[in-house]
Amino acid sequence: MKSIARLVDHIISRVNVNLKPIGRDVEPAVRQSIRTDKLTQYYAYYALSIDHPWYFRFQESNLGGSYFLGKCEVDRSVVLKSDIRGDELKPKGAVAYFGGLGTELYQDEIIQIVNSFLVKTLIHNNSQNPEIPEYFRILNTVAMHYSNIHGTTTEGAYLGAFATADLSVLHNCVLGDFAYVQAGDLSRQTIQSGRVWIHQPGVFEFDYMHDPEIIDRYVTFDSKGQLTGEFSDFVRERRSDFLPMYDSLAFESPVPVPESAFLSRYAVVKGESHLGDNCLVAQRACLENATLGNGSNAQENCFIVDSKLEAMDVIAHGGKLIHVELGEKVFVGFNSFLHGEADRKILVGAGTIVMPHTIIDALEPLDIPKKMIVWGYIRTQEDLASHSMSLDDFSKQRELRLGALVFNGDGAAFIKGFQRRIEHILQENGAYYDGNDATRGHAQKTQSVSYNLFQPYLAGEEEAMFPAIVVGNR
Amino acid sequence: MKSIARLVDHIISRVNVNLKPIGRDVEPAVRQSIRTDKLTQYYAYYALSIDHPWYFRFQESNLGGSYFLGKCEVDRSVVLKSDIRGDELKPKGAVAYFGGLGTELYQDEIIQIVNSFLVKTLIHNNSQNPEIPEYFRILNTVAMHYSNIHGTTTEGAYLGAFATADLSVLHNCVLGDFAYVQAGDLSRQTIQSGRVWIHQPGVFEFDYMHDPEIIDRYVTFDSKGQLTGEFSDFVRERRSDFLPMYDSLAFESPVPVPESAFLSRYAVVKGESHLGDNCLVAQRACLENATLGNGSNAQENCFIVDSKLEAMDVIAHGGKLIHVELGEKVFVGFNSFLHGEADRKILVGAGTIVMPHTIIDALEPLDIPKKMIVWGYIRTQEDLASHSMSLDDFSKQRELRLGALVFNGDGAAFIKGFQRRIEHILQENGAYYDGNDATRGHAQKTQSVSYNLFQPYLAGEEEAMFPAIVVGNR
Repeated sequence: MKSIARLVDHIISRVNVNLKPIGRDVEPAVRQSIRTDKLTQYYAYYALSIDHPWYFRFQESNLGGSYFLGKCEVDRSVVLKSDIRGDELKPKGAVAYFGGLGTELYQDEIIQIVNSFLVKTLIHNNSQNPEIPEYFRILNTVAMHYSNIHGTTTEGAYLGAFATADLSVLHNCVLGDFAYVQAGDLSRQTIQSGRVWIHQPGVFEFDYMHDPEIIDRYVTFDSKGQLTGEFSDFVRERRSDFLPMYDSLAFESPVPVPESAFLSRYAVVKGESHLGDNCLVAQRACLENATLGNGSNAQENCFIVDSKLEAMDVIAHGGKLIHVELGEKVFVGFNSFLHGEADRKILVGAGTIVMPHTIIDALEPLDIPKKMIVWGYIRTQEDLASHSMSLDDFSKQRELRLGALVFNGDGAAFIKGFQRRIEHILQENGAYYDGNDATRGHAQKTQSVSYNLFQPYLAGEEEAMFPAIVVGNR
Repeated sequence: MKSIARLVDHIISRVNVNLKPIGRDVEPAVRQSIRTDKLTQYYAYYALSIDHPWYFRFQESNLGGSYFLGKCEVDRSVVLKSDIRGDELKPKGAVAYFGGLGTELYQDEIIQIVNSFLVKTLIHNNSQNPEIPEYFRILNTVAMHYSNIHGTTTEGAYLGAFATADLSVLHNCVLGDFAYVQAGDLSRQTIQSGRVWIHQPGVFEFDYMHDPEIIDRYVTFDSKGQLTGEFSDFVRERRSDFLPMYDSLAFESPVPVPESAFLSRYAVVKGESHLGDNCLVAQRACLENATLGNGSNAQENCFIVDSKLEAMDVIAHGGKLIHVELGEKVFVGFNSFLHGEADRKILVGAGTIVMPHTIIDALEPLDIPKKMIVWGYIRTQEDLASHSMSLDDFSKQRELRLGALVFNGDGAAFIKGFQRRIEHILQENGAYYDGNDATRGHAQKTQSVSYNLFQPYLAGEEEAMFPAIVVGNR
């Protein structure tokens, strides 16, 4: 048997050891998501910048079409068309705080991916792992299409398509498709598809359930195990835009890029698009007739089409905007889908928070006021009544049942937590850069990035496997 | 000072320690041959095949535009647009023979390049190094444009443009432009430009001197230190053909390639070109309206333009053919320049040996019979009388003075030595492949080659330097 087949079997067995006891067999999902005969077509990309500590080691792995930045170790894993973005890894000596207690890192933090299968997965480390802050671990884990891992420990877990594990400590657990969790230790739990659950024990709990029939329309696996639904249709239609970009080594930006902004050479930019100062457009983002005002950012797997972002807007990983206009400092959370049309635009006022995994699929023009929090599933102006609230009002809540949302706890702490995080993202991304070093962020630090490209073996026993490679000194 | 400037200074000092005592200062040549501001534009390529042992380590180096295959270590060196082809490295346990005495290799042979500056240099190891056969060493060496190193030890040496160090043990010595040596230990010697010298002490000595004025016309450095002359004019004109090839990751052969043949994806093929079975076309070779009959090969830096090779023809590194027709099993040595025109073709009969560094620049149609040896500088049919001889007649020579050639020793041993080497090359290149594993050569073994691409740092103190990288296990 070829090494790649042995590797896939090995990963399945490692994950199933954790998940079969809670009723999940990952084998069908893994087998359907990989065509080993196609794996030789992809390169892996490793970005080097002068501002990030780098070290990269992988062995007995397949890294097809994947992108890495920062310190990574990948062993016995399949990392397929995934983005591993390690630009917020903590350096040696940094102090990490957990529940107010500080502890110093004895070495640079490192992303460790072992015995895992990641397909089109986004890993971005802003880790909150009290168990061992030196390692951002993804062990014995299967993560499906367009899922996001934004914090570890992720051990023995399954993440469905478009699922998000945010800041969290997970363990052997199952996240359904389009589920979002920010809820700490989920050992031996199964999170239903479409659930959006943020739980800070003793402080607050936000719990929203998307209607399963609606989730089916947007994200589902068909009887053959193929990902279908409107999200993947949308993404698939634009796939061909990315191909020429990956074939060419040369890069010439199709639009002017201000000196303080960053446009990844692995992002697609089409039509009449404009970038303001301090903007950040990450790899695998796609802009088409998009205007990004100063300090705005489009993270990995974002699509911003026929849309206008005034300034300081944050589109988190996988956010999709079509015919949308955002006021200043709007936050659009992970994998949110804001789908307007030319004759039914979606307007979002300044300071509004669009919760992760929100679907706004407009049947009529929508006008969302400023300083709102918006969640769930919205198609009409009327839907907003039961799926949004002013930040001020939400801050006053202690117990709220509104449609499919249950909120308990300190509404003000919840809103403030989000706002702090948005400020953190803007700072980290360099949105506030004023020419001084102290204000530099990703947009400035990633400017002079260069790339190493690795191709797998094309034949023989090791076909589709990559050679052991070490870049840099750990 | 930036690291790249420190590195260049360091190399100059290391080489000059060896060469200043014999009157050579390499500093001007090195400084003129490098534009450190351009170095960030190039990638380094490392080829992985399933048939060659691979291991690659480099540190504190610049590898701009360079290509590697096989086991290499590169430390504190500038390797600029060079080809390091290690597909004849001896494996551990192989027995190497020197003067009839055999010795077993205690580890795989490895190419070591340390404190060296190589620009457009071709390294191809078929090493004959009795000093330590486990290492193919290029230490403290400066090798200029289109020079060839085809054997070590090369320590403390300077090779001029289009110079060739063949099979040899060199030490601190200077090879002038377009000089060819196959002469063992040359410590503290200076070899004049245009000398073609093959010396096997006690057996034979072939010594030809090109007229210095003629060499000036073909290879010279101008007052600004820029390489000029007809050779570099010829190469420079075709440079743009190579650019799109290096920019693209995808490869589709412009001509049909038989299953048993190899066409490098880094070779240029234009016009009406054809490849026969078992052909080998190496990277940086250029074919234009070229027909390569079965078993023929075009090695690195070859140009075969408007020409036809019948079968089993060997064009060694840097050989250039324009309007040439070769019969079967013709050998064209290193850096030979056979320049015909549509109305004055150069015909070369079967079994003929064109010596390395031969210039045939036809003023009229030329017809070279079969089984000849040809050398020196030829422009007319009449010139052939004093620059060629039948192999049979040459084999009878013990002492020969003919024009600028002096030959002493065993003519038969000299001719047989060449013929054995041609057979070795054909075998190694897979020209005799018949479907059996035992007859596989480079053309078959290099089929499924994949590439790793490395890009240097683009800014900062380390600009133009590459990160330390290790591929594979030594």
